[in-house]
This record gives sequence, structure tokens and C-alpha cells, in this order.
Amino acid sequence: MGTSKGRLTLPSESNFLQETKELLERWGADAIRDSDGTKLDEDIKQLDAKIYTTYFVARGHNDFATEHMEECQQLYLMSTFNLAKDTQVTIDFMDGYFKEQLKPDYIHDAKKYWEVIDRTSGKIVPTDQWSLNQEENTVIVNQAIPYHEYTVSFLVYAIWDPTQMYNHITNNWGDKPHDIPFDLRQPASHNYAKKYLKQWLKDNPDTDVIRFTTFFYHFTLVFNNLGKEKFVDWFGYGASVSVAALDAFQAEYGYALRPEDIVDQGYYNTTFRVPSKAYQDYMDFVQRFVAQEAKELVDIVHEAGREAMMFLGDNWIGTEPYGKYFGQIGLDAVVGSVGGGATLRMISDIPHVKYTEGRFLPYFFPDTFYEGNDPVIEANTNWLTARRAIMRNPVDRIGYGGYLSLAYKFPEFVNYIELVADEYRGIYDIVKGTKPFTALKVAILNSWGAIRTWQTHMVAHALPYKQIYSYLGVLETLSGAAMDVRFISFEDILANGIADDIDVIINAGDAETAFSGGDIWTNPKLVTTIREWVDHGGGFVGIGEPTAHQFQGRYFQLADILGVEKERGFSLSTDKYFTQQVDSHFITDGLDISECIDFGESMKNVYALSEATEIVEYSDGEVHLAANQYGKGRGVYLAGLPYSEVNARLFIRALYYAAGKEESYTIWNSDNIFVEVHAYPEKGKFAIVNNSNTEQTAKIYDGQGEGRDVTLAASEIRWEEII
Amino acid sequence: MGTSKGRLTLPSESNFLQETKELLERWGADAIRDSDGTKLDEDIKQLDAKIYTTYFVARGHNDFATEHMEECQQLYLMSTFNLAKDTQVTIDFMDGYFKEQLKPDYIHDAKKYWEVIDRTSGKIVPTDQWSLNQEENTVIVNQAIPYHEYTVSFLVYAIWDPTQMYNHITNNWGDKPHDIPFDLRQPASHNYAKKYLKQWLKDNPDTDVIRFTTFFYHFTLVFNNLGKEKFVDWFGYGASVSVAALDAFQAEYGYALRPEDIVDQGYYNTTFRVPSKAYQDYMDFVQRFVAQEAKELVDIVHEAGREAMMFLGDNWIGTEPYGKYFGQIGLDAVVGSVGGGATLRMISDIPHVKYTEGRFLPYFFPDTFYEGNDPVIEANTNWLTARRAIMRNPVDRIGYGGYLSLAYKFPEFVNYIELVADEYRGIYDIVKGTKPFTALKVAILNSWGAIRTWQTHMVAHALPYKQIYSYLGVLETLSGAAMDVRFISFEDILANGIADDIDVIINAGDAETAFSGGDIWTNPKLVTTIREWVDHGGGFVGIGEPTAHQFQGRYFQLADILGVEKERGFSLSTDKYFTQQVDSHFITDGLDISECIDFGESMKNVYALSEATEIVEYSDGEVHLAANQYGKGRGVYLAGLPYSEVNARLFIRALYYAAGKEESYTIWNSDNIFVEVHAYPEKGKFAIVNNSNTEQTAKIYDGQGEGRDVTLAASEIRWEEII
Repeated sequence: MGTSKGRLTLPSESNFLQETKELLERWGADAIRDSDGTKLDEDIKQLDAKIYTTYFVARGHNDFATEHMEECQQLYLMSTFNLAKDTQVTIDFMDGYFKEQLKPDYIHDAKKYWEVIDRTSGKIVPTDQWSLNQEENTVIVNQAIPYHEYTVSFLVYAIWDPTQMYNHITNNWGDKPHDIPFDLRQPASHNYAKKYLKQWLKDNPDTDVIRFTTFFYHFTLVFNNLGKEKFVDWFGYGASVSVAALDAFQAEYGYALRPEDIVDQGYYNTTFRVPSKAYQDYMDFVQRFVAQEAKELVDIVHEAGREAMMFLGDNWIGTEPYGKYFGQIGLDAVVGSVGGGATLRMISDIPHVKYTEGRFLPYFFPDTFYEGNDPVIEANTNWLTARRAIMRNPVDRIGYGGYLSLAYKFPEFVNYIELVADEYRGIYDIVKGTKPFTALKVAILNSWGAIRTWQTHMVAHALPYKQIYSYLGVLETLSGAAMDVRFISFEDILANGIADDIDVIINAGDAETAFSGGDIWTNPKLVTTIREWVDHGGGFVGIGEPTAHQFQGRYFQLADILGVEKERGFSLSTDKYFTQQVDSHFITDGLDISECIDFGESMKNVYALSEATEIVEYSDGEVHLAANQYGKGRGVYLAGLPYSEVNARLFIRALYYAAGKEESYTIWNSDNIFVEVHAYPEKGKFAIVNNSNTEQTAKIYDGQGEGRDVTLAASEIRWEEII
Repeated sequence: MGTSKGRLTLPSESNFLQETKELLERWGADAIRDSDGTKLDEDIKQLDAKIYTTYFVARGHNDFATEHMEECQQLYLMSTFNLAKDTQVTIDFMDGYFKEQLKPDYIHDAKKYWEVIDRTSGKIVPTDQWSLNQEENTVIVNQAIPYHEYTVSFLVYAIWDPTQMYNHITNNWGDKPHDIPFDLRQPASHNYAKKYLKQWLKDNPDTDVIRFTTFFYHFTLVFNNLGKEKFVDWFGYGASVSVAALDAFQAEYGYALRPEDIVDQGYYNTTFRVPSKAYQDYMDFVQRFVAQEAKELVDIVHEAGREAMMFLGDNWIGTEPYGKYFGQIGLDAVVGSVGGGATLRMISDIPHVKYTEGRFLPYFFPDTFYEGNDPVIEANTNWLTARRAIMRNPVDRIGYGGYLSLAYKFPEFVNYIELVADEYRGIYDIVKGTKPFTALKVAILNSWGAIRTWQTHMVAHALPYKQIYSYLGVLETLSGAAMDVRFISFEDILANGIADDIDVIINAGDAETAFSGGDIWTNPKLVTTIREWVDHGGGFVGIGEPTAHQFQGRYFQLADILGVEKERGFSLSTDKYFTQQVDSHFITDGLDISECIDFGESMKNVYALSEATEIVEYSDGEVHLAANQYGKGRGVYLAGLPYSEVNARLFIRALYYAAGKEESYTIWNSDNIFVEVHAYPEKGKFAIVNNSNTEQTAKIYDGQGEGRDVTLAASEIRWEEII
């Protein structure tokens, strides 16, 4: 039996009362939830626990939806590139799309809302030069220019909710009806959603917490003609578009969005694209609508005396918790999936709610809970990475999902979660609401700023990509480091300058992406503001292709601060003499990088600008790690930073160095990369935490920088009093 | 004693008569030359051989030059980037330059000919906002904008010839006078050069061949404040610039060149830069001047009954042998250094001369000819790589340089060159002037076209660079392949379309360089011309970042032909399903690439556009080699192509495949990558050549594709009759 109770949500299911009671007790759970594919029996709902019930606003109501197919959600899509071999080209614009998910919008005037673009010239094809064949789903371009490529940007109706579609196809649900997503911007849907919720609350008196999964618009998820994922963008506004939205936008903003503002040459304004003004306007427009509509639903929930919780995912578009309008919704809570430290902080830092909840891994599904596998391994890994972040700012609750009956068959797992739950509650009791010791204040600088708090370099939630892993060490490291982290945009700097209390600015990303910044770096105000700030003592850390845009003899526009530049071939004629590594450097001191530092995908052809650059790592004819004094401040360059314990420590050291605060590195710290020290001065306590699952010995440093040796058991967290 | 005689030039020196006679005999030499630092005695000049004498036009005449320092050659230079911390910044514009080589031009009006640029805004600073301090060599910018960076573009006089400077410093020549380069565009220099040459011819009646080393303007070679190389561009026009040239240019073209047209943001219009219109105008302007002036000197030589030979290097700027005006000079011969097959062809293909001569390696210098070293090794390597190219188009003469007395101390080397000389003459007698069997006609497409024939991806002649070696396999392979090679520019295609007889177009280079092409790829006429041509059966081979420029949803503008595109982060949300290598492919058939193909620096993040793309090599989540059917034609993509025997064969196979001529691959060919077959139908002969220095067995194929096995000794060339 657990030694403490509360702050834990248990999934349950039908015919599982006794075991649910047992686990409720052992794990100290105080809430019970249903999951995708599970329902709670009446007797379970009567247990001494809050009841969460999953609630779908804009799908799962096919009785209504099939009667109002004209209120289906819509998307703008772009066809493939179609080569004209003569003066006419026929474009099968639905080619490659999944016809069970999407069907062309033939209700609205294609000549008004669609666009045919000559991708070879970049010009819009006049509407009188193309025609639409609705029987064949084709657009015929007349007066085409031979050997130009053409695309069609067109509107479709979404006739299948993507999450249900995914589950339906993955689990072979056969002829189970397809959930049809409807659009609350439409009159019938608007009324229906509110009316239904009111009735539902009456019909479900045992539900304490309405778990909205989620509100209105799903992140963009489009399947291909084989019924497999074709396009996925967890941040994508694709499914929020509709003729109604376009018309409302024009009325409000005084200009019409072009289809191209949404399809964006086929890149669809993903989070890696430097956002256009039109797309930013559109996002703002959708966010305000979603916040207003969601607020009305939340108000209904509150009027019924219940709590409103939002799942951070699925139909979450427009609700961005770090956006400008989230607070207006008035939610009680947000719950989200925890994949590691950064995703934990993505949830726990959410403002304007009474509490946050992290759904931990593993999900109780047969892919992990099968005979011969040990689910404790995944649970332990998940817990250790999340715990680092919890030490900085804990979620208010933890929980699990899936089939409890599956997990129950693994007694070691049940035991382990019992320990985790107690440990979590022990941490929470000390850490919640107090300000942990903070060595530095750092700001992540990109095109997005706050709205992508803890969400940089993400394509589909938690999926790995070759092009992103080399940047993921940034957030993962910071999620558990003794640093305050904020996310600022270029516009923030242009509008407000740089806050006085920031120690280090970080710019990390591939050239021309929103995370690096693209041509904003030619803005003199931006670069001079940063230069002045660094010159006066600030730290600037660039990773990958920071500040990169070819302009006026530089690729890295802040090459002067970073001390390095990238050779693109233009300056091969200039001799590069500065290749000598420094003998030792604070950034790498004491780290076991005798083999090599893992820069992930790394970055080619970076060289030192002058002998003043401190080259910390040079190999294969390239600089991968360097530092540079710039007035009273410093620049640091890193070729890449995949997450690992050694990289985390290297990055932390780099941040101290950039901030010019090396002397305080041994305040509340340890000399072992697997051991971290978290101090809570207001509480008079500090924790020594072993982030590894093996025993560790470390010299740990107290608030005066005094060191002593400690040995910690695998995964141990040891609390001590500050003397 | 050699079995044949002629076509070989021997270097000689003072007090070396007997040995010179011996080697003249053994190597079959028919010409004797001096070298840098050697002089020929009178008795040697009386031997039965032509006498070459090195001749400097615009340097090595300090008696004249010191009297006319106002006629020194000039350059435009750019200062470093200078950060303004307040509203005034003082720029030490000579910082980093070698004051023994260069001194500021204070004769001409700096306000007219210099430029101060705000590199943060890209704007020119008005001349009334800066002043020049000649005592301090500084420019003071007033009304500077804090935290903007400023550069000064300024004129200098070159007071030391770069080649002599290099030799002087390298060999510690102490107080030996510095050769001062003077400018034939100036009146006194103009007259002096001709007058001196006339007298010199009278004074040197034994000289048969005037070896111009070279004409007027040295390629750009600037040293730094430590007396080391700072900037080197073998193609650079930097040292051709002068006030006189600028004024003449303006008078002729009707517009003035800006300093920025020459300094080009500090990139100085290197051969990797996409050339601007102004720079192309300027090159043309210089070439016409040089051709006209050089012609006058050559005419004087001819009037004296001698031959005029040009060394391809040093002061060769404006004489480009594949340029429009080279033929007008009327030279008898060109001699150049042979580093391999591509440089051999760079010499042997030169039009408009009676003969070409290749100076082979090793140079007879102590760096190779020292006790314990075997110079035969370098000689053998040099010969085998050059021989491939000689089999296609031989130079008319071979030769050596340096101290003959050094080489003479290595009897094995003397023996080896005797063999090489005989082998060379044997090949020449058969190959010269006949059309070898040619399987394909290929065109290298870049911004430069013909003027850079056999000279792509070159920084400083024969020096290796990390950023170029991955492309050097292209020319080196082609130099000895059964293919006609031409070099075409984008402008050629825009003006004239694509010649009917071209089988394959090759575009190889890093994005935005002149070799890839940069934003010319947004020109609809260019891409449609190529698309139509490929669609009708042409082959298009892209290497590295071919056709790359971000525009309208594509980075590779001919992604449709290549079948591949590069992921820059913008389309990460689009699933990439096409990752399956084909089981086998013509391009790699029979090649021993079981370990891996060497793509050199390779190229990251390239993916297949559709299932139609034939992925030949896929690893590390990327496509590195692929082919794609496009109408009746084909595209082929290669991530990089450093030179090696296996890569050469792979590339040749790729070209056959792109051309759709796989069925003729076994005409005059072999199945061993070290063995090549060269056929000369008009002569009724073919050669089987072992390019390696070990014994090789191969199946070789005749003109009907009939195969038989042969075994060749190391380096053997075996001649047979065509039956």
C-alpha cells in the first residue's frame, strides 16, 4: 500500500471493480478515467474518486453530422505538381489523397476559393484559363505553358475525424461508422454543441471532470490514397479552414486570404516555416474564435458544477496554452502526455489553470504489456526523464491511460508505479509553489516565441525525425536545469528589446527555418539590439545554423558574436588559419568526451573567423564547438545538441560560460553528469537526484559551493536540509 | 637509350653540360628550358635542341618599375568588418594585409574610387560621412549607427609580384629586390614592354621559344600581415583592376563599376560565385585588352622569327584559353602543369595554338628528390592519371621542370622517365589527330560554360579543399572516358537551346554556387528547355545540390527530373515513404561497392519524391544515388563524386544510363575498373590500358561487344589491331 494518497488518475474499464479498488488504494489514486475504447461501469463511478469522462465536442455525433454534411470541417489542400507537356494539362487534384477522409468542396465557387498556380513561374493562372470537372475530380488548365508545372489549391470537406480514422484503420474496426467532424463556426453545429453538452451533463451526473478531447479543430493529419499518413503537423491549422472562416476573416481584417496563404507552396505553414504575416493573422483569428467558443462550453460545464479539463492534443488547434487567448477559456485543468522532461514542462508550466496533469508512459496497451516484456523498463525511463523536470516545476497530478486489466497482470509494474506515485507526491509536497534555486535565466529565440513554449523542433508529437534530434537536447536539458526558461520571438525583441534579467539567448535551428529565423536576420534593429546587449555582457548561444541568411558577406549574420561562420563555397579563396583547439575550456572541463562529442547530424563547413575565437572542438576540418568574447559578453557556437546526459551537462556549462557566470557553476551542482542537485531555499531543503538507473558516486556542491562525496542508489532521490 | 625521340622538354642549368647531353639522348628530348632559379649556359644553348627561355613581361624589370611607381598594378580590397559601438568608427583598412605587397592608393580621389558600406543595412555610406586619414591608414566613419558593421573598399598599389613574393619568402631570399609589377594599361609600361622585348630578342638569339610567364595580370594572390597567403583565387581578376581600367570601362560601357562590383562583399567574385552582369562585363573588358596587348608582343616575337609560348598560370588573367579572345593572341603554344587527367585535358584541348605542352610531376625540387625517397612513385602516379587523358587527346609535348642535377642523382627515376617518354611518343604517334571511339557526348552545365573548360571547382590550382573534392570525380573521370565533353553555361542554353547531339547534361555543385547555378534556376525558359529536352530523351545528371534554389515549393528546381528533393525542414510534415533500394541497378552492376559507395562529403536530407524514383543507394535515412525516368529521358542523382577508380566507373555507368544507352556499354570497354579500352577506328587500332600499378585481369569488349579475358602487367598499355 502506498504511503500517501492523491494526485493520481487511474484508467479503468468494465467488469474490473475489485481490481480497480485495489489499485486505487495501492497507487493512492483519487480519480478514475475512461480511455479510448473503455467505458466505466456504474459501480466504478461510485468509488471514492473523481470521475473523468472523455468528451468529444465536434465529432462522435454522427446523428447530427450526417444531417448537416454542409457543416463538415474543411481543409485547403494542394495537388501534386503537374507537368504540362503541351498547352493543356489535366490535374487529378485528389491524386494521393484518401477519399474516405476528404472530398472536394463543390458547394462553394471554385473560381473564387481555389487557385491554380504555375509553379515554374510562380504566377497565379487566371480563373478563365482553367475549368473544373466535378465528375472526374479534375482541373483542366488551358493555355498552359509547355513544361511548366501546375498545382491546384482546393477546398475539401473532412468527412472523417483523423484520430478516429487512425484508430479505426489501425485496429481494423471494419464497418464501425466514421466519426464526421463538424464545424462550430456553422450555425447548426454551433447550437448543437452547446445543447448537447447541457443535456449530456444532465445525463452523466457522476462525471466530475469533463475531459475535452478536445475542442474543435484537429491538428493537420491527412491520409494518402493507401489509407496511411500522408501529412502530419501537430501545430497545423489546416483543418480549421473553411469558407465561413475565410469570409469572416476577410470581413474582419479587410483583406482576403489566398489559398496560397494556407497551402504555402505545399509546405502548409508548418512550425518549421518562418510564419508569414497572413498566416499569423489567421492563427490569431482562429485562436480568438476557438477561445470564445470553448469558453461558452466551459461555462456550461461550470454552471453544471463540474470541472473542465482539456486534453493537450487532437483537436487542440487554436487553444495553444501559451497563446494570448488561452486564459479566456477559463479551463480548470489541462492534461497531456509526458514523453520526457520537455513535454512535462510543456504541461506543468501552462498558465491560467487550476491544475495540470501528466499522463505518463507506458500506455497500458498490448504493444508494451505482453508476456515476456518488462514494462517497468519503459516506466522507469519515462519517470527519470520526467522527474528532472518535475524538480523544476511539477505537474499537479499524474495519471495513466489504457487497459488497467492489462497492467494488473504485471505485479512488478504495479509495485513500481506504487513507488513512483509515492515519490512523486513526496516531491510535489516540497517543490510545488516554491521557487527553486535558479542559476541563469535563458531565452529561446525564434520566429514563434511564447506560443511554442517547450514545443520547438516538433513535427508530430513525440515522433523522432532525423532533422530534429540534433536540436532536442536544448529543451530536454533545460527542462530539468536550474534555469528559468522563456521563449521569445524576434518580434518581441523588435517591439520590446531584451529584458534586463536575461542571461543567455539561444538561437537553434537549420537555416531559413522558423527556429533559426531566416531573413529576419537582415533586420538591422534585430541584430543591433542583440549586439548591443551581448556587448554589454549578455550571452548568445547558437546551435546548428543560428542567425543564418546570406546577406552582405555573411551567412551567420551574428558571426561577429559567435566567432564562427559557415563556408558555403563563396569564400574558399580566403585562407582559414584558425583551426587550433584550445588546450582546455570551461565548457568541456571534467566531461568524459575523450572519444568525441556527439553533435548529432552536426553542421558542415563552419570555421573560426579569427584567432580570437576559442575553438573548443575542431575535427574533420570544421569547428563544432567554439566560444567568443564580444565586448563584455560572449558567444558560443554548437554544431548540434542531441540529448544525452553528457550533452546536457556540456550545454549547461556552455550556458554558464556564455553568461560569464563560471564562478557560480559549483553552487548546488554535482560533478557527475548523472547526478543533479535541486535546491529550494524557501523550504530549506535540497534534493540530490540520481537520474540514472545505476548507482552513482558524485561530489555534490552546496549553496556555498562546498563539495562533498555522496553515493546514490540507482534512481535515488535524497532529500537533505539546507544548513 | 630511348627508342624514339622528340616531344620532350628538358630543364637544365649551369655547369651541367655532359649530363644534359646524356639525358637529352636517353629521354629523347628536343628542347631545353630554364626554370625559376636556373639559367642555361652558352654551351648548353648550342646543343641540338630548341631553347625555351622564361620571359616576364610585367615584372622583373625594376629599373623601369621603380621609375614609374604610379604605373604599378592595383587591386580593390575590402577591409575587415568593423563594429561601430557609437556614432564614430575608425577603420584600420589595411589591417590584416601585407604592407610589403600592398600600399594604399593615395594618388586618386578616395571619395570617387573608394566605398564605405554599412554591412548591417547593406547601404553605401555617403562620402560626406567619412574621412580618410592617410597618415594612419584609417577611414573614420562619422554618423555611424551604433552596432552596425562597416567595411571600406579601397584601392591599393601592388608593389610586389605575388609569385616572386611567394618564392622570395619561401626560400628566404633576404634582401633580394622585390619584383614590382607594372601595368601595361599605363603609357610608359605599354611602351617599355614592347621596346624591351624587341631588344631582348636581339640580345638572346639562341632562344627559339619565348616562354611568357606570363603576360600582365597575376591571378589574385594576397598575403596577410604575417607574410602568409590570405586570399588565393587562380581565376581572380583582382590584380587587373586600376583607376585606368575603371575609367576606360566606364567610357566604353557607359556605366561605372562600383568597388562592390569587384570586392563583392569580400567574396571577390571567386569562381564559385554566380557571376554578376557587371563582373562578366568587366572580365570581357579585361580579356579584350589583354588579348590585344598580348597579340602585339606575340607579333614582335614572330617578327623576330621565334615562337611564342604561354605558361598557363601566374599572370594569365584575361588570357583564358577557352575564352572568346584567346585565338586573337596568335600564340604558338601553351604549356601548363599536369596534376592529373583533368589538368592534362585543360591543356591538351586548348584551341588556336600549334601545340600544347604538359609539364609533368614531380618537379625536380628537394621536396621530392631527397635521399631515402623514391620519386618514381610520384612520377608513376602522375603518369597513370595523365595517360588516361592522353588516350583521349594528347598534349603535343611533355616536359619537366626544376633542377636536372637533382633528378640525375636518382638513376631509377632517370630510367623510369625514359620509359614514360617512349610510351608517350608511342601513344602520340597513333592517337594524335584521330577521333577516338566516343560513346557519349556530355555537357557540364554551370554559370561559366566554356571559359572554365576542365576548370570547375578549382580554388587554387591543384590544391585540395574539403568543399570541392566531392565534385572532382566528374572532370577527372571524363578526362579519360570515351566521351566528348563540352562546357556550357546557362546563358548558352537560354540563347541557343540545347545542341541536338548532347546525350547527357551534368549539373554538379553546392547550392547557390556558380557550379550549381543559384537563382538562374527560377528562370522558366531554362527549366522548360531542359525539361523538354529530357522528356524527349535527354539525360540529366545532378550531383550534390543540382538546380538548387528555394522557389515555389521546391529546392531542387528540377526535382521532377531527378526524382529527388532535399528536405530543408519545411516539408518534414510530409511522410517520406520511398526508402526502398532497388535490388540491383545498371549504374552499380558489377561494381564492388559491398562496403559502401564513397560520396565524399555527401549530401544530407535528400529524399525520393515518389515510388517511381529508382533508389540505388539509401542509407542513414537519405538517398545518395537515384535514377528517374522522365518521359523518354532520365535523371540521375549523386550525392557526391570524389575521384576513385570505382567512382569513375560508377559515374560512367550513370552517364550511359542517363543517356539510355546501357546496351552499348560493352562496346570498347572492360569489366575491370582499373582497365580501360581506347579504340581508334580510323587507325584500326585499340589499346587496353592498365591504369593501376598492379597486374590486372579483365574481360575486355571489342567494337561488337564481344568479350575476352586478358591479363595486363602493372601499368601496361597493350596495343592491338581492330579486326
